[in-house]
Amino acid sequence: MNNYSSPTLAGIAGFTGYSGAELVRILSRHPAVEPVLLEHRESGERRGPWNGRGLKRMPCTAESVKAAGLAAVFLATPADVSMDLAPALLETGAAVIDLSGAFRLGAAANFERWYKEPHRAPDLLAEAAYGLPEFCRARIAQARLIANPGCYPTAANLALRPLVRAGVIDRASGVVCDAKSGVSGAGRKPSLKTSFCEVTENVSAYAVLDHRHVPEILRTSGLEESELSFTAQLLPLDRGILETIYFRARGAGSAEEILEIYQRAYANEPFIRLYPSGQAPDLRAVARTNFCDLGIHFDARGGRGVVVAAIDNLGKGAAGQAVQNMNIALGFEETAGLL
Amino acid sequence: MNNYSSPTLAGIAGFTGYSGAELVRILSRHPAVEPVLLEHRESGERRGPWNGRGLKRMPCTAESVKAAGLAAVFLATPADVSMDLAPALLETGAAVIDLSGAFRLGAAANFERWYKEPHRAPDLLAEAAYGLPEFCRARIAQARLIANPGCYPTAANLALRPLVRAGVIDRASGVVCDAKSGVSGAGRKPSLKTSFCEVTENVSAYAVLDHRHVPEILRTSGLEESELSFTAQLLPLDRGILETIYFRARGAGSAEEILEIYQRAYANEPFIRLYPSGQAPDLRAVARTNFCDLGIHFDARGGRGVVVAAIDNLGKGAAGQAVQNMNIALGFEETAGLL
Amino acid sequence: MNNYSSPTLAGIAGFTGYSGAELVRILSRHPAVEPVLLEHRESGERRGPWNGRGLKRMPCTAESVKAAGLAAVFLATPADVSMDLAPALLETGAAVIDLSGAFRLGAAANFERWYKEPHRAPDLLAEAAYGLPEFCRARIAQARLIANPGCYPTAANLALRPLVRAGVIDRASGVVCDAKSGVSGAGRKPSLKTSFCEVTENVSAYAVLDHRHVPEILRTSGLEESELSFTAQLLPLDRGILETIYFRARGAGSAEEILEIYQRAYANEPFIRLYPSGQAPDLRAVARTNFCDLGIHFDARGGRGVVVAAIDNLGKGAAGQAVQNMNIALGFEETAGLL
Amino acid sequence: MNNYSSPTLAGIAGFTGYSGAELVRILSRHPAVEPVLLEHRESGERRGPWNGRGLKRMPCTAESVKAAGLAAVFLATPADVSMDLAPALLETGAAVIDLSGAFRLGAAANFERWYKEPHRAPDLLAEAAYGLPEFCRARIAQARLIANPGCYPTAANLALRPLVRAGVIDRASGVVCDAKSGVSGAGRKPSLKTSFCEVTENVSAYAVLDHRHVPEILRTSGLEESELSFTAQLLPLDRGILETIYFRARGAGSAEEILEIYQRAYANEPFIRLYPSGQAPDLRAVARTNFCDLGIHFDARGGRGVVVAAIDNLGKGAAGQAVQNMNIALGFEETAGLL
Repeated sequence: MNNYSSPTLAGIAGFTGYSGAELVRILSRHPAVEPVLLEHRESGERRGPWNGRGLKRMPCTAESVKAAGLAAVFLATPADVSMDLAPALLETGAAVIDLSGAFRLGAAANFERWYKEPHRAPDLLAEAAYGLPEFCRARIAQARLIANPGCYPTAANLALRPLVRAGVIDRASGVVCDAKSGVSGAGRKPSLKTSFCEVTENVSAYAVLDHRHVPEILRTSGLEESELSFTAQLLPLDRGILETIYFRARGAGSAEEILEIYQRAYANEPFIRLYPSGQAPDLRAVARTNFCDLGIHFDARGGRGVVVAAIDNLGKGAAGQAVQNMNIALGFEETAGLL
Repeated sequence: MNNYSSPTLAGIAGFTGYSGAELVRILSRHPAVEPVLLEHRESGERRGPWNGRGLKRMPCTAESVKAAGLAAVFLATPADVSMDLAPALLETGAAVIDLSGAFRLGAAANFERWYKEPHRAPDLLAEAAYGLPEFCRARIAQARLIANPGCYPTAANLALRPLVRAGVIDRASGVVCDAKSGVSGAGRKPSLKTSFCEVTENVSAYAVLDHRHVPEILRTSGLEESELSFTAQLLPLDRGILETIYFRARGAGSAEEILEIYQRAYANEPFIRLYPSGQAPDLRAVARTNFCDLGIHFDARGGRGVVVAAIDNLGKGAAGQAVQNMNIALGFEETAGLL
Repeated sequence: MNNYSSPTLAGIAGFTGYSGAELVRILSRHPAVEPVLLEHRESGERRGPWNGRGLKRMPCTAESVKAAGLAAVFLATPADVSMDLAPALLETGAAVIDLSGAFRLGAAANFERWYKEPHRAPDLLAEAAYGLPEFCRARIAQARLIANPGCYPTAANLALRPLVRAGVIDRASGVVCDAKSGVSGAGRKPSLKTSFCEVTENVSAYAVLDHRHVPEILRTSGLEESELSFTAQLLPLDRGILETIYFRARGAGSAEEILEIYQRAYANEPFIRLYPSGQAPDLRAVARTNFCDLGIHFDARGGRGVVVAAIDNLGKGAAGQAVQNMNIALGFEETAGLL
Repeated sequence: MNNYSSPTLAGIAGFTGYSGAELVRILSRHPAVEPVLLEHRESGERRGPWNGRGLKRMPCTAESVKAAGLAAVFLATPADVSMDLAPALLETGAAVIDLSGAFRLGAAANFERWYKEPHRAPDLLAEAAYGLPEFCRARIAQARLIANPGCYPTAANLALRPLVRAGVIDRASGVVCDAKSGVSGAGRKPSLKTSFCEVTENVSAYAVLDHRHVPEILRTSGLEESELSFTAQLLPLDRGILETIYFRARGAGSAEEILEIYQRAYANEPFIRLYPSGQAPDLRAVARTNFCDLGIHFDARGGRGVVVAAIDNLGKGAAGQAVQNMNIALGFEETAGLL
């Protein structure tokens, strides 16, 4: 166990983006870690005169990371930037936690199918640990490189994997994941799609059946591609993901039995909260937290099950989970800075 | 065909609510109809000094409706008020178009199951025409009493019924309707659930698998209750409904074949717009219109189909469709005042 | 008076922007005019498959404008594009109504001070009519080139000029115009400042005491620069401008006397609505209209007056007023298409 | 100085309201204080299953407050409830911090003029300390009863009092305070005015020149009623107040001189942040903090000054400031739990 008295340094590349700024916010309150801003060429416009004020800054290079003895580096950068930065940063001995999709899919071919570009650091794919602590804690604790999960897959896998494992889903009928996200999930780079006047008073579906987060859901949940119908929708709000997941149960069942499956799966998980059967979480319940809230509904007529999962896309869906992963990798208490 | 030169009078009970105000707005531009405000005891707070200014007003009684010779009366009132008002208003000879759920479910027992109160005018249920013109035009044209459909069922049935009829859906796998609605769908009466601070930056699911609009969807689409999983969700926006509908196809198929089913079903429908396969409508496309926009997605792996349906809940989902029904019932051009 | 039977053609350059799209919407309902989309090199991304569908299109050149016999051309383009397009388009004989700031300030030096660039068509400045019909109707009727007013100055001048003329303001104490605008006033080009996540749950002041709309207010209201304190603020909403204007009265006075000044000034104005003393308009009252609503408050202690002015920045603040100007210039009824 | 090791208990009456919930949130992180929920008859609907979970609860009576040894009690209740509760709670020896307007105005007559009801505990008015620490710190430290300032007056007085004291304002020209507030400032009780559909895409001015927060501004700033024009406006956002304050300077001056006045006044204040001259704060900068941010603009032509003040209405405008006051009254570090 690490000593809390002299702070460990953790660097943040991409600190001007929404996930990066959330990392700064969380780490500034972390009892054992001090955030360091890593500046690189493509850093975006900063927000207000007070953000990041008083924090250490240094160039985002292996040299400065090594010289300063950073214990961890967060890459809150686009996938292509992460693929370029990761190899050299790993050489410094820092744990690298990448928030992009660069290292999540295991095989270069899988990445290339969904991201439609060649992988620039395929040698690292095999060793990257998938950073969903509830299912991959042991590997994360040993990893040099952690691929922080996507926001949609985090909620989907936390909702689906216990059910798939328990064998309660009638997989032949398929599983539906209807996902809704706030706009910060699209990043801070200006675009017409995320302009206020285009988003307000609007909802739009995108990447229907073809979202690049689908392969992450398949890998972790255990479902086949032909079994999963996934649709993402952009909502007029800043932060939050709500996923409504529909399945048919094999044989008889009840809401209580399904709830018990989750209770067993998540008995010791500090960041999973289960609702009484028939109650659904909303985004307010998880805003600015690292929680994933799950509500279960079941109707025996037809064996229709509905699970509602809520997370903050910048919390458990990005920066919060990244800090949870750092805590595991560096040997801190897993909840440090997150409650 | 009616003569456009001397305006027909149409009364609006509940004109201070959102659907009622939208009726006033639409009818004020109607080429052949003049709106009349029907005041009754429970009329809510009016909005601003200009709303309804210069319009005729009269008490919401059978006497005044008859004396003024109203050709149609819209009931934009809660179901229990509609059940009380409808019998006497029908005696005046006016066509009565009810926007509540009072007369939609055919049998009193069905109403009582879903609305959890006794029906107060059960004798009228048999003669009430269900006001979804795309499927019930002939009955509407003959009806004294028209039950204007619910907002969710309008989008769901327009998306589902052609597919169910064509037999392309693998019904054993079930159908999912994930519905999202703006807040105006909940009416204008103040409540904590519709308060700004509770709704903004939030999404919440409600009445999961148990919404009172479900029986309307079953009746018109032809699905069985055990086959349909319906969830309603409240979004931080004023107007609009987006429904994402998931199904599995029986046997092989393609997006084009599914699109053709819709093209055949809606070839002559002025208010249904079909998108090229793979494109999805958003709420902006239908805001303040009477359109229902449909976008079809299909992936042959698993026969996974997704249909996105968008309407304005106060337009095709309420007031717009009510005016469409009035046009049919009174013999006006069906699109009058609505394009 | 024009003959309504064969439609007059009016071209719209910049039809993909917010003001341009609003022009399309208004002109599509105009009883005597048919809109034509003028395509030029820099046309932005279109919105949805239905926008502008079925409308005539042609290149935005003097040749095609002349060949088609357009009676009017709207320039819903940035100031530098308008300065480049206007000279040749005027040669075609079409009335040119420019929605940018290019021709509003009378003298090139004034333009250059506030817009910080040289004027590229200074010869046209003298003949351009300022398109605020309530005060410049006669010149507009004779003009070839109409400079449609800025959104902020429209509300400010309608509120201020009657008071300045009547001499009721104690000008030595100064006048304050606190202006709030929806985001569509900033145009459709993506930028960080108009991104959803930067705007929602936020308010920001900008160009404090230094907004380029100030000289328009001074020119029309009759105030001196040293007398006016103007601040613009960006609000988390799509459409609408609310201006709260503060002044001190010279000598005694009353709300009723001030209301009378407005009543005299606007007795025959179809688009100015005065509220009973002590009531203030809100944005809902003017949304999607060409109205300017004014509410007057006065407290004799200190002679403190407050006028609240509300417009839709895309209506009376841009496209609505531009159509009003076209109606005047082409001899149509001034309210045609606008009520 | 208090000992941080054994937690001090602080009760919260009205914990289901927005200010009360914010008190719970802040105190749950306070290093030396443990919050206790005080339940009374009129407690509103709670929010979600996780709010307040695991916290101590007791009836809101003098008996239980005394028995439990609460060191402080926060009244996040309406003024009439606060007037009823305060006398008995003071008898327990707890410091009472009232967030309502009940004890802010010094004299019963002043209260009765602005709140339009008789004062029910006039004997306490003289001893109540006005809880604006930047100006009343010494009295707060000695007080049994602290009247936590209103949200609007907090921002207005922090912006105005240094200028009034320094004598730079030309008071004969008057001072304008144009105030904009998020909806949470109106409380959690449902009403049409705070319903989502009435607030979104809207801005409305209310209580123009007649807001009950005016006398608080006069008392603390030193202005006369005839000198101040105050308008409040409701914005479509949850949290935050932005006030734009306009004045005329006596004699010559500069933005730098004005900035210096503030620098001297607030040199040692931990919660006041001054912006470089010409920069204005926005609401994002202060969201969920106890800061008041001030930006100064000045134009020598006419001596026009504009100060923009931003606070979180639930932070420095209510719960944050209340905790700051508690820290002072109980001898904790003033910033404890607030940075």
